[in-house]
Amino acid sequence: MKKIIGVMGPGESATSSDCKLAYELGKLIAKENFVLLTGGRNKGVMDEASRGAKDNGGLTIGIIPTTDTSSMSDAIDIPIITGMGSARNNINILSAHAILVCGMGSGTASEVALALKAKKDVVFLNQSESAIKFFTEIGKEKVHFAENPN
Amino acid sequence: MKKIIGVMGPGESATSSDCKLAYELGKLIAKENFVLLTGGRNKGVMDEASRGAKDNGGLTIGIIPTTDTSSMSDAIDIPIITGMGSARNNINILSAHAILVCGMGSGTASEVALALKAKKDVVFLNQSESAIKFFTEIGKEKVHFAENPN
Amino acid sequence: MKKIIGVMGPGESATSSDCKLAYELGKLIAKENFVLLTGGRNKGVMDEASRGAKDNGGLTIGIIPTTDTSSMSDAIDIPIITGMGSARNNINILSAHAILVCGMGSGTASEVALALKAKKDVVFLNQSESAIKFFTEIGKEKVHFAENPN
Amino acid sequence: MKKIIGVMGPGESATSSDCKLAYELGKLIAKENFVLLTGGRNKGVMDEASRGAKDNGGLTIGIIPTTDTSSMSDAIDIPIITGMGSARNNINILSAHAILVCGMGSGTASEVALALKAKKDVVFLNQSESAIKFFTEIGKEKVHFAENPN
Repeated sequence: MKKIIGVMGPGESATSSDCKLAYELGKLIAKENFVLLTGGRNKGVMDEASRGAKDNGGLTIGIIPTTDTSSMSDAIDIPIITGMGSARNNINILSAHAILVCGMGSGTASEVALALKAKKDVVFLNQSESAIKFFTEIGKEKVHFAENPN
Repeated sequence: MKKIIGVMGPGESATSSDCKLAYELGKLIAKENFVLLTGGRNKGVMDEASRGAKDNGGLTIGIIPTTDTSSMSDAIDIPIITGMGSARNNINILSAHAILVCGMGSGTASEVALALKAKKDVVFLNQSESAIKFFTEIGKEKVHFAENPN
Repeated sequence: MKKIIGVMGPGESATSSDCKLAYELGKLIAKENFVLLTGGRNKGVMDEASRGAKDNGGLTIGIIPTTDTSSMSDAIDIPIITGMGSARNNINILSAHAILVCGMGSGTASEVALALKAKKDVVFLNQSESAIKFFTEIGKEKVHFAENPN
Repeated sequence: MKKIIGVMGPGESATSSDCKLAYELGKLIAKENFVLLTGGRNKGVMDEASRGAKDNGGLTIGIIPTTDTSSMSDAIDIPIITGMGSARNNINILSAHAILVCGMGSGTASEVALALKAKKDVVFLNQSESAIKFFTEIGKEKVHFAENPN
């Protein structure tokens, strides 16, 4: 069984800093020979992390919310087509052995919360004070922080 | 079509204040002749809100995470059995015309985040400073606050 | 807890005989004071069964495949919005205490199969020889037949 | 994007003929350099197809119904953990570019029906007369037959 690392983060609302970091995370995951898992869309953190992995010889999985691949990142090797919208966020979380969270938005917040509900560890990168404070309050020792992807 | 009001909040980790408030919310929803929707389990906010509605002649729907009704609140009139665990949280959100959030925990946080993702308004009750700050940051004008259920 | 009866059958491809029968089933369910559950769309068996129940004072639940109510039967009292397409068929099955199958199509066949997988009894009405033969082969004593809804 | 071939068939109730054929299908899929997708459990067709692919250098995906990997085939490289029971059958179907059906049971029948609902082609192997007749009736030109996996 391959080791699957999930990278979660905003799509359309990702900052350029989130995107740059996501690309680096994808690259590092590929170099460690891990499999990358994201929400699979062609926007923001999902797209950049997938590119970073793909450009560096990694294998990329996308858990697609729609019933087709029209909004899929073209750096996805293996699209899992769920057709279930944001309910697929729970699959992202359950399927990842480790979860990196890069940037924040409403979809990403739901993934962090679902991860904590499933007693999974999450590593926070590029977060605001208020996100750190809130999720530490509800997730306690399951929430970890990293300054940079190395 | 009936008006469905969702009450979201923690199960096992609900405080007694959350529970007391949840019961009042259920009661008020029943008195307004609205239908109450919760996550349906026999714990915390879900259970108390359902009791509050039921004791006051209301109709109660529970969106059950498991494949049977063994952990269901006995104040649920209509159990919708999903068998999909926390992925059912998205159904809670999509099905409610208005969403009241009473107390906080990881499951509840996922519901608030999914609601904001779906561009739904949420009303916060009994929340910490950090929850208010975080969700206002990601949800902006979609996040509302109420001091008490009246 | 209310007794929920599921009526499953084709949408767009329902025959007029399926539709007429579905209306009668909805009516009988309402008269028995049961709650009707269908797939909730404004087509075929789902629509007619809901009308039959509604016109006779019954309560109707629709498990909606989309994220909104634009294709919902207007005879639905309580729409449960899943946004998960045909994956919602499993919820239809798990939530119904008894399952009546009126007519046949690919969506309906998936519901019958999921019901048998979940060890639920199904009652067949208005079926072809080949449907009866196939489902009896895989479902054995769980498959029942009725000549007419009375 | 890799080409994903789904092999669907019974678990516990698979015949030895289904199992032998499933192993061969997995082997052929691997030799064509396609990715194999199954329901991922350690029983019957899912297990044998995954072994056939794995033993021949293929990549194997399992769409797992439970929230953990305790009942997973150990020939699965990439488990996608859905925690949604039989509702995951729709993901199996939507994610596969081609669908091979080997043997029959209630879960398998739901997958064939969901595939036909999604307008996907399915190839039948090792089927009874009644399965062929029924699914041809509802799926028409979308249902194909093969005598042996070569």
